[in-house]
Amino acid sequence: MHVDELERLRSEARQLAVDMVRLLAMRRGVVSKIAEVKRSTNLDTVQPDVEAAVRRAMLEEAVKHGIPAETVNRLATVIFADAVEMQSKPSKLLTHMDILRRAVEMQRNGREVQRLEVGEPDLGAPQQVRDTVGKAVVEGYARYADSRGIPELRTAIAEQIHARYGYEAGPNNVIVTPGGRFAIYLAMKTLLAEGDEIIVIDPSWPMYKQCARFVGARPVAVRTRFEDGWTPDPRIVEERISKSTKAILLNYPNNPTGKTLDRKSFSKIVDIARDNNLTLISDEVYIDYTRGDGPVSVLDGWDVNFILIQSFSKSYGMTGYRVGYVVANEALVSKMASIIGLVLTCVPEFIQHGALKALSLKETPKQYAEIMMRRVDVAVRELEKIGASFYKPDGGMYVFPRINTGGADGMELAFELLESKGVAVAPGSIFGGYDDFIRISLGASEESIAKGIRLLGEFLAEKGLT
Amino acid sequence: MHVDELERLRSEARQLAVDMVRLLAMRRGVVSKIAEVKRSTNLDTVQPDVEAAVRRAMLEEAVKHGIPAETVNRLATVIFADAVEMQSKPSKLLTHMDILRRAVEMQRNGREVQRLEVGEPDLGAPQQVRDTVGKAVVEGYARYADSRGIPELRTAIAEQIHARYGYEAGPNNVIVTPGGRFAIYLAMKTLLAEGDEIIVIDPSWPMYKQCARFVGARPVAVRTRFEDGWTPDPRIVEERISKSTKAILLNYPNNPTGKTLDRKSFSKIVDIARDNNLTLISDEVYIDYTRGDGPVSVLDGWDVNFILIQSFSKSYGMTGYRVGYVVANEALVSKMASIIGLVLTCVPEFIQHGALKALSLKETPKQYAEIMMRRVDVAVRELEKIGASFYKPDGGMYVFPRINTGGADGMELAFELLESKGVAVAPGSIFGGYDDFIRISLGASEESIAKGIRLLGEFLAEKGLT
Repeated sequence: MHVDELERLRSEARQLAVDMVRLLAMRRGVVSKIAEVKRSTNLDTVQPDVEAAVRRAMLEEAVKHGIPAETVNRLATVIFADAVEMQSKPSKLLTHMDILRRAVEMQRNGREVQRLEVGEPDLGAPQQVRDTVGKAVVEGYARYADSRGIPELRTAIAEQIHARYGYEAGPNNVIVTPGGRFAIYLAMKTLLAEGDEIIVIDPSWPMYKQCARFVGARPVAVRTRFEDGWTPDPRIVEERISKSTKAILLNYPNNPTGKTLDRKSFSKIVDIARDNNLTLISDEVYIDYTRGDGPVSVLDGWDVNFILIQSFSKSYGMTGYRVGYVVANEALVSKMASIIGLVLTCVPEFIQHGALKALSLKETPKQYAEIMMRRVDVAVRELEKIGASFYKPDGGMYVFPRINTGGADGMELAFELLESKGVAVAPGSIFGGYDDFIRISLGASEESIAKGIRLLGEFLAEKGLT
Repeated sequence: MHVDELERLRSEARQLAVDMVRLLAMRRGVVSKIAEVKRSTNLDTVQPDVEAAVRRAMLEEAVKHGIPAETVNRLATVIFADAVEMQSKPSKLLTHMDILRRAVEMQRNGREVQRLEVGEPDLGAPQQVRDTVGKAVVEGYARYADSRGIPELRTAIAEQIHARYGYEAGPNNVIVTPGGRFAIYLAMKTLLAEGDEIIVIDPSWPMYKQCARFVGARPVAVRTRFEDGWTPDPRIVEERISKSTKAILLNYPNNPTGKTLDRKSFSKIVDIARDNNLTLISDEVYIDYTRGDGPVSVLDGWDVNFILIQSFSKSYGMTGYRVGYVVANEALVSKMASIIGLVLTCVPEFIQHGALKALSLKETPKQYAEIMMRRVDVAVRELEKIGASFYKPDGGMYVFPRINTGGADGMELAFELLESKGVAVAPGSIFGGYDDFIRISLGASEESIAKGIRLLGEFLAEKGLT
């Protein structure tokens, strides 16, 4: 009797699953009609507002029946991914990485190239850091360690934060990461569920949007304009918030513009985040590359949930060491520690010894900032000479001038500049579609920067684009 | 007019999505009735045959409507995962990590503890490796590098593989990873889409299932038995394959059993993988910890798609350096490189110099294997003395004896053993529900292993569990 009953129930369950497929088929029919209308009106394939509305409706229905939100979110993601796949177009041929590869190749072939495309400062780690790491390796500090980082380093970071910002962080608010990129990944992976949204202010470092997509979330861009001094308009930020928005990403000093926010602009974003229960992810890896007191930080005692992203790559020139950290509440740090424990175990202990030594070198960030600000001055002077318009950087290691492309594709123009003049830059298109801008990186010497900009001027003049 | 039409279509698409949720709710109602019947008849929660039948029915329906199999497979997986979740028991309070934490705490309090719970060998990196890394750091080999790893190391790995297995791998088949864990993560993240399934042979290192879930996939267990010498039954492996299955994970020498597969058993799994178009993920990090010629490898020229997982942690004692590698086809390596590029940039170059040096030390893996095999002998001798039944390890660094728990919870018993006798072991429950087994790690000295097993014997005798 049990067996018969079981068979009957199973057949019913099977039929219901098949019915779901049938509904999906019907929905796909409607989606292809929508795609047709969109094509005739030139709308984007993905429309976050629309998807968010469907997701909300599905979640509301789920609540009625006691279905876990997680299950319905997964179901929604399957449906949306299928719909996007149905409508997708092939992607572009050339990318930013092709410029880097070609520049390296040209150098290998003996060609002189001004390498103004890479976001890596050429400063290197201080000798004391190198010696410390070298000694720690030789002495065998290379066992599995705490996923959050060694306690001495987390304590030193917490103390430095307190001394600098007056912010009361304990060691359990700090997690050491293999570089700033991984810190951003951890922030997004822990904050954003499949289908959640994060606001990114354009122009922006491409990694943010790529990483959001990588964790299954959706980046929503807030466009800022050169004419407005790259200041984000709080009303636009508010407009972009949906029920699925979980975070706003800030990056000041900014890559690529060199912009920093004043207290008033910063506080407006803080208010929006707090009022909408969003977390501010503040990537402040360039914060030491400034003049004077330094820019506003999310650690300046704001009343808002935040995740600070920090790195030893810029302030201490430790790019290839891959070490950075996150400051956040204990619950988030604990989630992040589980992820590091799962996929990495820990950051090598001997590298953490180097980071600890770096924190004791109070003069290094100042020296490195001076070098970088002198390069900013060189770039500004040379750009003015060639008559470019640009925002004069408050900090960071980039300048983002507008160029006249004469309607040409920015990526192709950047390739032409590289091939004809040996100057590698990053086209503005990759920072959120700023096709008539280019990013000049100040990771190279003053000479290389000056020469690169002069050659850029020649290139534009020869093409009649001045 | 377009706008009205678009609005109408969107509302229709939204409603169909909501209807899918409603059907899911109905199906869940049926599933809980099935669960009730199952409970009264003591049937398993997961019944692969039944799931396979539902999936087949869904796919047949999908074909009628031109829905891609991938989409329907994902849909099926979401439904099944939800159903399993509905029927699952609440998780236990204590975890394996609590044993490790308590063991460390007891040691800090001055208590002698036999640390037989951690999977970290105590061997350390050879002095030449330490010196090489130290020198590379001091000399400044710390710039952003190729996401796949430095060419010299990838070439050396490819050459070593060719010399050892005759397998023709080029440097583009190799990617250097921050440890074996990250190699497994990369394998799963690139092979498995949301909702895909991967077959894991139990008992298994818990990381595999955790990582599969972390990437949104579903681990499907194939249970092996002590009575069968832990050999997987090919028929059961085949039964567990569904339309969503993308990979089979193998780990020989095995953690926790110390089992290796003979060529015949290995070839059966290879055949199943090839016939079903699955990829074999072969985690061979313990392959040097064996006697004689060493066990079968996925690199032994089998005709099957594979991903090899390898690490410098065991063969060269470089645990805390976090360096390992993957061997796979170029397309997969290229996808993995994009992920490393996105979230990590690269493995620090100076660490890769150390790995390169390690590969030149041909004697180190042999010496470390000898140490480990002597420890296996000690463990075998002591376990026989206390009358335990266990599979005599072919390799690896663990023994997995059966113990009489007298019906007690294995995790609680492990805690009691730690508190009363100062012996830390990993309970068998974490390796896939082997409640009457414990894993003894051979990462400690012979003395510690012998003493730990003697104390285990005392403990069981005192509790009347022999």
